[in-house]
Amino acid sequence: MCRFVVYLGNPIHLSSLTTEPENSLIHQSYDSRERAEPLNGDGFGIVWYAPDLHNKAVQFRSISPAWNNQNLRHIAGAIKSSCVMAHIRAASPGSAVTELNAHPFVHGPYAFMHNGMIAGFPHIRRELLNLLDDDLYQMVEGSTDSECLFAHTLQLLRKSGSATVDQMARALDGAIGIFMDCLEQHKIVGSTHINAVLCNGREAVTCRFTDAPDKPAESLHLHTGKLYSCRTGVPALLEADEDEHSVILSSEALTGDPSWKVVPEHSMVLIDESRRVAIRRMTVNGSVTA
Amino acid sequence: MCRFVVYLGNPIHLSSLTTEPENSLIHQSYDSRERAEPLNGDGFGIVWYAPDLHNKAVQFRSISPAWNNQNLRHIAGAIKSSCVMAHIRAASPGSAVTELNAHPFVHGPYAFMHNGMIAGFPHIRRELLNLLDDDLYQMVEGSTDSECLFAHTLQLLRKSGSATVDQMARALDGAIGIFMDCLEQHKIVGSTHINAVLCNGREAVTCRFTDAPDKPAESLHLHTGKLYSCRTGVPALLEADEDEHSVILSSEALTGDPSWKVVPEHSMVLIDESRRVAIRRMTVNGSVTA
Amino acid sequence: MCRFVVYLGNPIHLSSLTTEPENSLIHQSYDSRERAEPLNGDGFGIVWYAPDLHNKAVQFRSISPAWNNQNLRHIAGAIKSSCVMAHIRAASPGSAVTELNAHPFVHGPYAFMHNGMIAGFPHIRRELLNLLDDDLYQMVEGSTDSECLFAHTLQLLRKSGSATVDQMARALDGAIGIFMDCLEQHKIVGSTHINAVLCNGREAVTCRFTDAPDKPAESLHLHTGKLYSCRTGVPALLEADEDEHSVILSSEALTGDPSWKVVPEHSMVLIDESRRVAIRRMTVNGSVTA
Amino acid sequence: MCRFVVYLGNPIHLSSLTTEPENSLIHQSYDSRERAEPLNGDGFGIVWYAPDLHNKAVQFRSISPAWNNQNLRHIAGAIKSSCVMAHIRAASPGSAVTELNAHPFVHGPYAFMHNGMIAGFPHIRRELLNLLDDDLYQMVEGSTDSECLFAHTLQLLRKSGSATVDQMARALDGAIGIFMDCLEQHKIVGSTHINAVLCNGREAVTCRFTDAPDKPAESLHLHTGKLYSCRTGVPALLEADEDEHSVILSSEALTGDPSWKVVPEHSMVLIDESRRVAIRRMTVNGSVTA
Repeated sequence: MCRFVVYLGNPIHLSSLTTEPENSLIHQSYDSRERAEPLNGDGFGIVWYAPDLHNKAVQFRSISPAWNNQNLRHIAGAIKSSCVMAHIRAASPGSAVTELNAHPFVHGPYAFMHNGMIAGFPHIRRELLNLLDDDLYQMVEGSTDSECLFAHTLQLLRKSGSATVDQMARALDGAIGIFMDCLEQHKIVGSTHINAVLCNGREAVTCRFTDAPDKPAESLHLHTGKLYSCRTGVPALLEADEDEHSVILSSEALTGDPSWKVVPEHSMVLIDESRRVAIRRMTVNGSVTA
Repeated sequence: MCRFVVYLGNPIHLSSLTTEPENSLIHQSYDSRERAEPLNGDGFGIVWYAPDLHNKAVQFRSISPAWNNQNLRHIAGAIKSSCVMAHIRAASPGSAVTELNAHPFVHGPYAFMHNGMIAGFPHIRRELLNLLDDDLYQMVEGSTDSECLFAHTLQLLRKSGSATVDQMARALDGAIGIFMDCLEQHKIVGSTHINAVLCNGREAVTCRFTDAPDKPAESLHLHTGKLYSCRTGVPALLEADEDEHSVILSSEALTGDPSWKVVPEHSMVLIDESRRVAIRRMTVNGSVTA
Repeated sequence: MCRFVVYLGNPIHLSSLTTEPENSLIHQSYDSRERAEPLNGDGFGIVWYAPDLHNKAVQFRSISPAWNNQNLRHIAGAIKSSCVMAHIRAASPGSAVTELNAHPFVHGPYAFMHNGMIAGFPHIRRELLNLLDDDLYQMVEGSTDSECLFAHTLQLLRKSGSATVDQMARALDGAIGIFMDCLEQHKIVGSTHINAVLCNGREAVTCRFTDAPDKPAESLHLHTGKLYSCRTGVPALLEADEDEHSVILSSEALTGDPSWKVVPEHSMVLIDESRRVAIRRMTVNGSVTA
Repeated sequence: MCRFVVYLGNPIHLSSLTTEPENSLIHQSYDSRERAEPLNGDGFGIVWYAPDLHNKAVQFRSISPAWNNQNLRHIAGAIKSSCVMAHIRAASPGSAVTELNAHPFVHGPYAFMHNGMIAGFPHIRRELLNLLDDDLYQMVEGSTDSECLFAHTLQLLRKSGSATVDQMARALDGAIGIFMDCLEQHKIVGSTHINAVLCNGREAVTCRFTDAPDKPAESLHLHTGKLYSCRTGVPALLEADEDEHSVILSSEALTGDPSWKVVPEHSMVLIDESRRVAIRRMTVNGSVTA
């Protein structure tokens, strides 16, 4: 089911998210706290945006577990970015462990990652792929539900003409709606969980969604305000002007700092270019813990 | 463009094909003799049929170059089979190096491998995949032209009701025809080369095909008759009764033994359960060196 | 700290130990039951002895977690042997995850694997390596305490002139003694745990050792008598003549079958060519749970 | 025998050395021009120095061939540094392909890489390792002659008290002398080739050495002066003040630009902090093409 973290703020070392905090992504790779199955050892991926390359998305993915990958440690400790996404994978049963299936996925300025599972995806995959424009169909290299959802989000985004954070949110919301309709038409039984992130290097949207009537959505935590940095497990939270605030969305709180907040189920978090955060209720049907 | 070898005969060690002969598959992985580009270092695969498992196809694939894979050396030296397929890959530009794209592919009793390239495949991939039955569509895990051709071959084979070697040959021939028609409809310019093997553990068909007007097909050699074995580079060719004869089809002659014969272009080689060999002209249009 | 299993008996599929039982080695790779830390995801290895190759030890090792390795599933399901060793690794902190450090190690007819940890090994490694004969020094390819212990065991075995199971036991016991003496001379503080297996394809010795005054040795279970086989999680235990009995030593019971017995601490289990089992107290000093 | 490149100058993208030039390191990985065997496919490594981390050496290594590694392409295109080392490996026969044996090696501020082969190294390895101080002995993680030579160079450098580029050169020269003496004492027959680079992020020394009476040393080319950059195969050489000059030492000329010069055999190239280049004859005995 995976775990992830996305960061927007002042440039920080990737290690401040992935290797240094007490509950870093590497820690979650072998001992996550908010999943029944604590293991997320089926590879990992990082995307960071490079300011000196017109904010290009740079991708580093591997099928090795995050906890024993030396390249990850070296690179995360050396690279700084103001926009970072990182993901550790727990592959769905039957889904191949290959770099092509490792998140985050990248297309143009957009990167995407997913923690969750779409019920009966193999039964609707063909239909969903066939709804895609040719170029987005060709973009899909792996076999995950996640990459297919990314492609549908991009397709809706393209139709919206421009790409504000508001339109990014509508596109993700709409793409999930397409998936849910398809599941309903095929009378697929089972619970769908979708915590996903769409990011363009300056803005990001995240959702916390499930249609399960009896189970909570996958965990998702929000950390905002102040300047965040973390080395050797200790978060430093400096008072800062509003325009220096950082925003983190993470499957699990990375530190013991009480400023982490639970994102409500069935909602989206929108982060704009000024790193202002808005929380919005999703339009697609799903269970909501009242 | 790859290299491959398929063997049917008395049980031999896999190493007699892959590591021991003077021009073994491992040798071809770094220094093949009959390709302009001598390198086939983008992974490898072996399939052998296990007699004590109702002749089940057993698959071992890796993205590491064949020449430096220690597991390959150990396993090839220890396992014997009367039906072996082995393949080394030179990935087409842009095609991902992942185990999912490594040949031979397996489905039920059938295994398939390919040396060649289908012109403009990315442009016709979607259409060709959509012609497949649902289960064969779902079977396709990677992104190669080869696996798609395998799926079409299986689909035609299924329609033929039974599966004699003759019908296996018609299915492969027909699947290539479907691809060529699709290329023509899309007015794809460029040369297609297809040397492929379809095998069910007792019988096999192989083709040597190209539509290039000015270039030969990929190389393909046939070795038949006598008992074949090879250790430390020296082939032993023992006189044998007809029912003990072995058959090898290989992209390149594995040994200096003069009994290797060039397979004619635009033809198929059929090997039946008694390891009798028939060579048949293909029906699909393509260039033939007269 | 790792987990392992060794089998001697009638030929069985490797999968009967590694993938099929309810608590197979693959299950233990992500959810072992008798370690505080349930994860053994730093690679794996299998050795089987090949009867048609003069009982040669065949080695297959990988740095990928056992649970997501497709080659392991295919190979384990296809290969039968009357002598099998399999190991899943949880690397000691700072120890590299590389195939060279994956167990079982092989030298000539002998294979060796280890579950445990030698306190302060980096501080005594140089001295221990320098006690080795040149050829055994050169044999050591990786950096683990385990491989070094294997080399010392082989050195003592060589000095004993012949190699009965009794001498194999003395050699392993003696090698552990050399390590313990070295730790004492260097006044290394910390607990040492050594569950190890030395096997020659027909006979095997195993030990369950610790010098920790307050912690039990690593878990070790013995299954003997009857014909063992296991497919799809259900062990079949057939009554059998004494000469068809099988013996399994495993870090954890593979099945719910009550015939698994705990190996006493500070003891060695000797399995002779007739698969008769003897349990013997170790000579080297260590803590014994009275 | 490998290929390598080291760069000091104004910050450039790693891709300007590894992926972009006509004869980039990736090109040399499958088709090097100045080795009889054109293949260097046994893994690769890059070290760059990170200015915002007190010039720390950051290491990225892999056992996959450079030509099909997607992470290398992404990272090389995104990271800039004023000091870069990159290496592609052709493993000596019998030397394991593992990340631990991939160059460049790093220790503190120093990084080291090697193109060549030390005759009969397995026979002198033990003796050479035993001459090392404990901490440098422990530093050696792999089994290559190269890493052992690095350790000896560091040991001599430590004894020299400070670490000017002059002393770095003496240390490398001296370490090669220790190896050559050891070979002579053991009466090892065979040719030794050592092209090596020692770098501390601001200064570097390189040597081109062989003791072969009848074969040239491994190729080594020097490019200096002007501002170097290279995208899509085309080198841009801008006139520049002396303090902006860049220096490149490469096994093969990366571009067709005529300013590449052959480094004389049996000599060292010293690059100081101001990127002034000095060429000095080695003191250790070896063949010199007069």
